[in-house]
Amino acid sequence: MGKEEKIGITVKKDENFSEWYSQVCLEQGAKLVDIRYGVQGFVVHRPWAFKILRRVYDYFDEEVEKDGHQPFLFPTVIPEENLIREKEHAGFAPDVFWVTEAGTEKLERRVALRPTGETAIYPIYALWIRSYKDLPFKGYQSRITVFRNEKTTRPFLRGREFMFYETHDVFATHKEATQQITKDMEIMEEVVRKKLKLPFIFFKRPQWDKFKGADETYASDTLMPDGKRNQMSSTHDLGQKFAKAYQIQIQDENGKEQYPWQTCFGPGIYRIMAALIGIHGDDTGLILPFDVAPTQLIIVPITFSKDQEKTKKVIAKCQQIKEKIKNFGYRVEVDLTENSPGFKFNNWEMLGVPIRIEIGPKEAEEETLTIARRTSREKKKIKIAELEKEIKKSAEILEKEMAEKAEKYFEGKTKETNSKKELIEIMRTYRGFVKVPFCSISSDGEKCADILKEETVGGCVCGIKLENPEKAKKTDKCVICGKEAKHIVYVAKSY
Amino acid sequence: MGKEEKIGITVKKDENFSEWYSQVCLEQGAKLVDIRYGVQGFVVHRPWAFKILRRVYDYFDEEVEKDGHQPFLFPTVIPEENLIREKEHAGFAPDVFWVTEAGTEKLERRVALRPTGETAIYPIYALWIRSYKDLPFKGYQSRITVFRNEKTTRPFLRGREFMFYETHDVFATHKEATQQITKDMEIMEEVVRKKLKLPFIFFKRPQWDKFKGADETYASDTLMPDGKRNQMSSTHDLGQKFAKAYQIQIQDENGKEQYPWQTCFGPGIYRIMAALIGIHGDDTGLILPFDVAPTQLIIVPITFSKDQEKTKKVIAKCQQIKEKIKNFGYRVEVDLTENSPGFKFNNWEMLGVPIRIEIGPKEAEEETLTIARRTSREKKKIKIAELEKEIKKSAEILEKEMAEKAEKYFEGKTKETNSKKELIEIMRTYRGFVKVPFCSISSDGEKCADILKEETVGGCVCGIKLENPEKAKKTDKCVICGKEAKHIVYVAKSY
Repeated sequence: MGKEEKIGITVKKDENFSEWYSQVCLEQGAKLVDIRYGVQGFVVHRPWAFKILRRVYDYFDEEVEKDGHQPFLFPTVIPEENLIREKEHAGFAPDVFWVTEAGTEKLERRVALRPTGETAIYPIYALWIRSYKDLPFKGYQSRITVFRNEKTTRPFLRGREFMFYETHDVFATHKEATQQITKDMEIMEEVVRKKLKLPFIFFKRPQWDKFKGADETYASDTLMPDGKRNQMSSTHDLGQKFAKAYQIQIQDENGKEQYPWQTCFGPGIYRIMAALIGIHGDDTGLILPFDVAPTQLIIVPITFSKDQEKTKKVIAKCQQIKEKIKNFGYRVEVDLTENSPGFKFNNWEMLGVPIRIEIGPKEAEEETLTIARRTSREKKKIKIAELEKEIKKSAEILEKEMAEKAEKYFEGKTKETNSKKELIEIMRTYRGFVKVPFCSISSDGEKCADILKEETVGGCVCGIKLENPEKAKKTDKCVICGKEAKHIVYVAKSY
Repeated sequence: MGKEEKIGITVKKDENFSEWYSQVCLEQGAKLVDIRYGVQGFVVHRPWAFKILRRVYDYFDEEVEKDGHQPFLFPTVIPEENLIREKEHAGFAPDVFWVTEAGTEKLERRVALRPTGETAIYPIYALWIRSYKDLPFKGYQSRITVFRNEKTTRPFLRGREFMFYETHDVFATHKEATQQITKDMEIMEEVVRKKLKLPFIFFKRPQWDKFKGADETYASDTLMPDGKRNQMSSTHDLGQKFAKAYQIQIQDENGKEQYPWQTCFGPGIYRIMAALIGIHGDDTGLILPFDVAPTQLIIVPITFSKDQEKTKKVIAKCQQIKEKIKNFGYRVEVDLTENSPGFKFNNWEMLGVPIRIEIGPKEAEEETLTIARRTSREKKKIKIAELEKEIKKSAEILEKEMAEKAEKYFEGKTKETNSKKELIEIMRTYRGFVKVPFCSISSDGEKCADILKEETVGGCVCGIKLENPEKAKKTDKCVICGKEAKHIVYVAKSY
């Protein structure tokens, strides 16, 4: 950031979200990723993004450990025979990268770069878990990446290598497994809604959209400003399928061999980051929750290079205030680059720094300074004696403003209809969910889902709401086939 | 840990270190890794080990960020053309794994699994670093793994995938680069000597043993109980070689293009773990510093199943003490498994838990308990009122005992000679460093090093000591060729 380079976003978020999103992520924006690495879909995560992502990882680590999960780390590669042992799950194989050579030699058996952890982890679980006394067994991997050969890629939405998180739990009964699904939802509430201020709905996915090899998939979806659903997490009820495929067996209290029940939970670190960018951001750039921001407060000296004496005083005051704020326990910086104050304001707003403090020659003389929140940008002159209290207050108001704005945004993004014609019409321009009566989310509904997708040019059946689900009336007919509608489902386009 | 399985180490550390080490790492020991994953050299890091390793990572993160490094994350794969652009460094290519296929398709250009980060990172540095104002530029990657096709593999000593840490720094002058090398050494002192209580010596490596592509390599070596040197870190003075190969250029204050100077520092997370196991451990298992241990205190109820009333009281007391200790801010557990107290003692000693607390029926009645350190195992009855003070004191004594024992061990592991015959004789059975006069650590000394290696069956010239180096006397002759000795070098066998 030495020289005053051209930065800034040239499009409005509402007018061209896709371009806005790219600009925020890249060089001219918040420099979150570098896509010039030279291998498609493999990006460099730059410091500002990495620090935010690390914070999100830490939040989840804290919650899953509170819930009794133990951390571990499995290899990045998976033997081919593991990968295809669960029949439905074997469907992953066409998307995986294969390591086939080492040095100048061909490997005897090729290995895959993990597309997800089940097939690496469960053969080892079969060795570790032997008795009902070993249950429940809860493990997780954090700060890892996985690999899938996606056709199209976009920062934090779809990558060939992307940041991953996975918990893998084993229970003696299916009841405990379903309780874990609720627990996983609570973790999402705690981290994503409470800490990151992001709204979402939990869905039970249709059978045709579940995780390969699972009995059921539960997922949390939010909506991006372009109206596309963004799946921010999933928990899979694996039933006993993987236990049977990988021979995980326990001796029960009577000494009988039993297959246990499994679940796995994956908060989508990347997708959550995409939502953080897309939902909270504005025309100027990112907006970050106070606790998430790598730099929570930025101090900008308002100096006039003509008067060197005054400038010196201002800088000294900035440094002094910085030390003060550091001692309060916050992450704070002074911007001492040669850029103009206006450039600096733009730059730190682009990065989403929650609170800005301005100190000019007048403030340097008095015991005051100017404070502004990233959300409203409203400036306020305060006394230095009240700084700690004012920072706390500003942070609280900022987070409240963020949460309210996000919830309001999300609430306004659902329509409903029971006419196919109207659905098609709505989906042509609408950016959000459309609730419609639908015949079935079991496999017999897939045909209707395919038709729906085709006629709405990409509309997906997200599933049925898990909490306070809308119930189909007896008279409701499937919006596609006209047969009895068992459910009210949510439809949205998807990434 | 449901049933009382057979655990415990069957050999003495001094008598058969190699076997002792394996047993501690595996199933019958502290369950640090699982080597039954099915791909040679790719191991599973189990929770106990992972928590220790994560702590070590955190220590380094804290220090390198204090020193101004920014975290980032680069892709796991490296384009082939990057990997071979620096001529000397291209020597890595024979050891790398290649990703050549995706799904059923052959990739247009194969990519390598990173063996180390330079060739992934520096082409991007060339885009980021443009002006002297961008310098110094300090970045790092933590919690990553790298891949090398090693012939033989051992837990934490040599793996085909292993845990990695790397900082990559760019400076305007060579002077600043050399100052960074000192700074990196200070970080090693802070983390490895102070926090982990591990002794080591800094060496300047001979030219033939430097990092491929570096001008000079500086490394910290410790000695394992089998006398083999264990390189725990290295800092490479890259000079301008990589800058030239990857076209990292800066505009200096006069607007002229210049190549900057680079260093990179890699604490060997795996090797540090090996030292932690090997140097601190004893015949019973691991011994961990108080701050490093995943569980710092274990409470063992001493119960007699016959008297259920008493047992209940003991358990209640244990829970109560656990909550108390938790509130002090320590990581504590109560062992409520059905195992015998003796089995429990063994198990937690195996895991290296620093402090054990025993509570029996008598302690449950009184306001007392028994406390013992993992180091001396000496038991002490203390009053509960003094618990916090006693834990603090025990932790301090334990860490002091660990540091003293390790330093004493290390000091006693260096001999010296100036006779080749004696060197060969010593190296036949001795487990440690041998100091000898040596002609040169520039490339002209390589021939002597090769002869030395052959005649001592594996002795390596580790280099010359960086701090308070022993100076060769004018009369000293190279222990191999008999020519003038420029240095006193350290010789040891190596992994």
